[in-house]
Amino acid sequence: MAKSNKIYLDYAASFSANPSSIHSFGVDAKKKLARARKEVAGVLGGRSEEIIFTSGGTESNNLAIQGAALAWRGKGFPHIITTNIEHPSVLETFKLLDKRKLAQISIVSVEKNGIVDPKKIKKEIKKNTILVSVMYANNEIGTIQPIREIAKEIRHWNKQNLFSYVLFHTDAVQAVNYLDLNMERLGVDLLSFSGSKIEGAGKVGVLCKKKSVLLSKIFGGGDQEMGLRPGTENLPEILKFSKALQFTQKVKEKETKRLTKLRDYFFAKLFNLKNKNQNFRAGLAGVGDPENRGPEKISDFYFSINGDLKNRLPNNVNITFPNIPSDLLVIELSARGIMCSSKSACKSGDGKASYVIKAINKNISEEDGSLRFSLGRDTTKKDIDYTIKALSEILTKLKKWYD
Amino acid sequence: MAKSNKIYLDYAASFSANPSSIHSFGVDAKKKLARARKEVAGVLGGRSEEIIFTSGGTESNNLAIQGAALAWRGKGFPHIITTNIEHPSVLETFKLLDKRKLAQISIVSVEKNGIVDPKKIKKEIKKNTILVSVMYANNEIGTIQPIREIAKEIRHWNKQNLFSYVLFHTDAVQAVNYLDLNMERLGVDLLSFSGSKIEGAGKVGVLCKKKSVLLSKIFGGGDQEMGLRPGTENLPEILKFSKALQFTQKVKEKETKRLTKLRDYFFAKLFNLKNKNQNFRAGLAGVGDPENRGPEKISDFYFSINGDLKNRLPNNVNITFPNIPSDLLVIELSARGIMCSSKSACKSGDGKASYVIKAINKNISEEDGSLRFSLGRDTTKKDIDYTIKALSEILTKLKKWYD
Repeated sequence: MAKSNKIYLDYAASFSANPSSIHSFGVDAKKKLARARKEVAGVLGGRSEEIIFTSGGTESNNLAIQGAALAWRGKGFPHIITTNIEHPSVLETFKLLDKRKLAQISIVSVEKNGIVDPKKIKKEIKKNTILVSVMYANNEIGTIQPIREIAKEIRHWNKQNLFSYVLFHTDAVQAVNYLDLNMERLGVDLLSFSGSKIEGAGKVGVLCKKKSVLLSKIFGGGDQEMGLRPGTENLPEILKFSKALQFTQKVKEKETKRLTKLRDYFFAKLFNLKNKNQNFRAGLAGVGDPENRGPEKISDFYFSINGDLKNRLPNNVNITFPNIPSDLLVIELSARGIMCSSKSACKSGDGKASYVIKAINKNISEEDGSLRFSLGRDTTKKDIDYTIKALSEILTKLKKWYD
Repeated sequence: MAKSNKIYLDYAASFSANPSSIHSFGVDAKKKLARARKEVAGVLGGRSEEIIFTSGGTESNNLAIQGAALAWRGKGFPHIITTNIEHPSVLETFKLLDKRKLAQISIVSVEKNGIVDPKKIKKEIKKNTILVSVMYANNEIGTIQPIREIAKEIRHWNKQNLFSYVLFHTDAVQAVNYLDLNMERLGVDLLSFSGSKIEGAGKVGVLCKKKSVLLSKIFGGGDQEMGLRPGTENLPEILKFSKALQFTQKVKEKETKRLTKLRDYFFAKLFNLKNKNQNFRAGLAGVGDPENRGPEKISDFYFSINGDLKNRLPNNVNITFPNIPSDLLVIELSARGIMCSSKSACKSGDGKASYVIKAINKNISEEDGSLRFSLGRDTTKKDIDYTIKALSEILTKLKKWYD
């Protein structure tokens, strides 16, 4: 005898109830899945049938980009456009499609402040362009892209070219906790994000796709997720994900305000180190002004802030220290109990400079190290104070070592 | 202040520790992941670096099949072979590759007992054949395929054809709890399975690939999983999965014996219904003998057992009732608290007869219903007794209704 005095003789379907089964356990699972789908759709201002659950952000981005390219029925190659600071799950997917001769690609460079110029995107659009993919907020430098403005340019092009339609996709993985996710207001056709940046949400990805958008599936298999994503849905994780997402939206405004303050406190502390420690001579000059950003001096080391200071995620602090390897800084901080990163974890540990930092700073060398501090729900002012103190100690120590 | 008196400032990487991060949380996560990988490799008699964690069985099968086809560097199409009763994640992937002109496919029919003839597989192999994919045990009718014999035929072909190499892949999703998973003994190059059929294992897929096998990745993205599967690893689920898998292997022998007995008790009860209820006149004649399998008579309804009785998973019972819709039987049983299924959940609810049952019984019509009872860790003799009783009641009721 099994679960709740019922006899479960469907172990071959799955150990927990499978939403595709037609017995009462399956029907119950199906109802729960439908409710979660509706809740997630609500956050994006979409409809239930527009939500595709996947295994994570990487799969969601792949499904949007590969799915659009594979759906192409025209002659020659479909053409797709993105920027040079996208997450690897977008940028590498573009390169994969190019290499496999499934698409022609254009990669637009962002400006020195880490923000893309919508006009430059528009300039790349041609008759066979089917998709523009621009991330909502960058995972390394936290810059927020002008999604609404890019959408406007694309809309304009689409209006003037009745026989083609350019889709607009945004990778909103880093935006989910802080920015507006309403697809109508953003003007996007496809939006992907995941649970991995949401506390308690687990490993679930979402691709929201406007009903009119035609995608091809990547995997062969069952008929789940509107036929676009085969495989039994990860119901327990999807339920956790939806609940955590709702909570995130509820605290979004308050958390955004709190973290913006903390982040700016972090920046201010960085520049004020000189008041506490005579070794440091940092100044605010040039910061936030991409044309005039010289590296700031800390101790005898210089540092510069990466990415626009205003159009930036409330939880992101990213700085470059010339001539100090990133990994050394991360490990020194880790030894002091502080966990931060040098760049995207998806590309970490290879000892190379971040391609995002290189994209916004042409003078950077492979020896220059960057640090990303990303704040979250548990971060306090005390944490920042402790981190600044540790950073000051490490830089002083390294200075001696270098001298 | 955050987790365990450490300051976590890497929220942009992920809310839980990311095995790709180089700080101490990341290093700790990396160690745990490496341990789980080693444990899983141990079960398959493989090496850690041969284990690729995916989101589930569907993705594992896709990565094996699409991955092999995409790695093809020869002229023309690569050729791949499978059977007509594979899981949709294999069969539909074959059809997808065919449709997209990425592969030429051969689908070999199984015999009436649901088992494929290894000689027929060998007959299909040609100069451009790169892969044979045959499931270890069928998800609907539970038949166990002669993997070792097929491997022998392929080995033989490979020895005689020095300039080509045919890979052998098996989908072992349904086999994981009961059958030998040692890849060396099985003679396979690629083996996929998932956590969804293992109690407490969660949604994790594995593809084990012999080191010499060259695959191309499906997703663009980060460098995780030997560069073959981008996306942050689902560490919490992978740890649960590995633990549950170990336990499964420990109880495998005992559970196999126990369930084989229960399954055979189920079959015996089915045939002995006539002793308890004069309405039933079932007999054992013809069962297990594919050439002589006539439908057995239950009440005024006939029934037949699907799939070989001997080479069969210890937990699978599958019967066809001509002229009674599957869904009706599933719902009637569900109303009595018994959860079973009509066919693969991945293809359920469309009201069509199962393609697996059609493959082994050419005389079956769309109106004939099949039931799959799959037993598991909680199943008892009492459950079987109750199920037989319920089935008898339902058939009697339906007989009156039909009369």
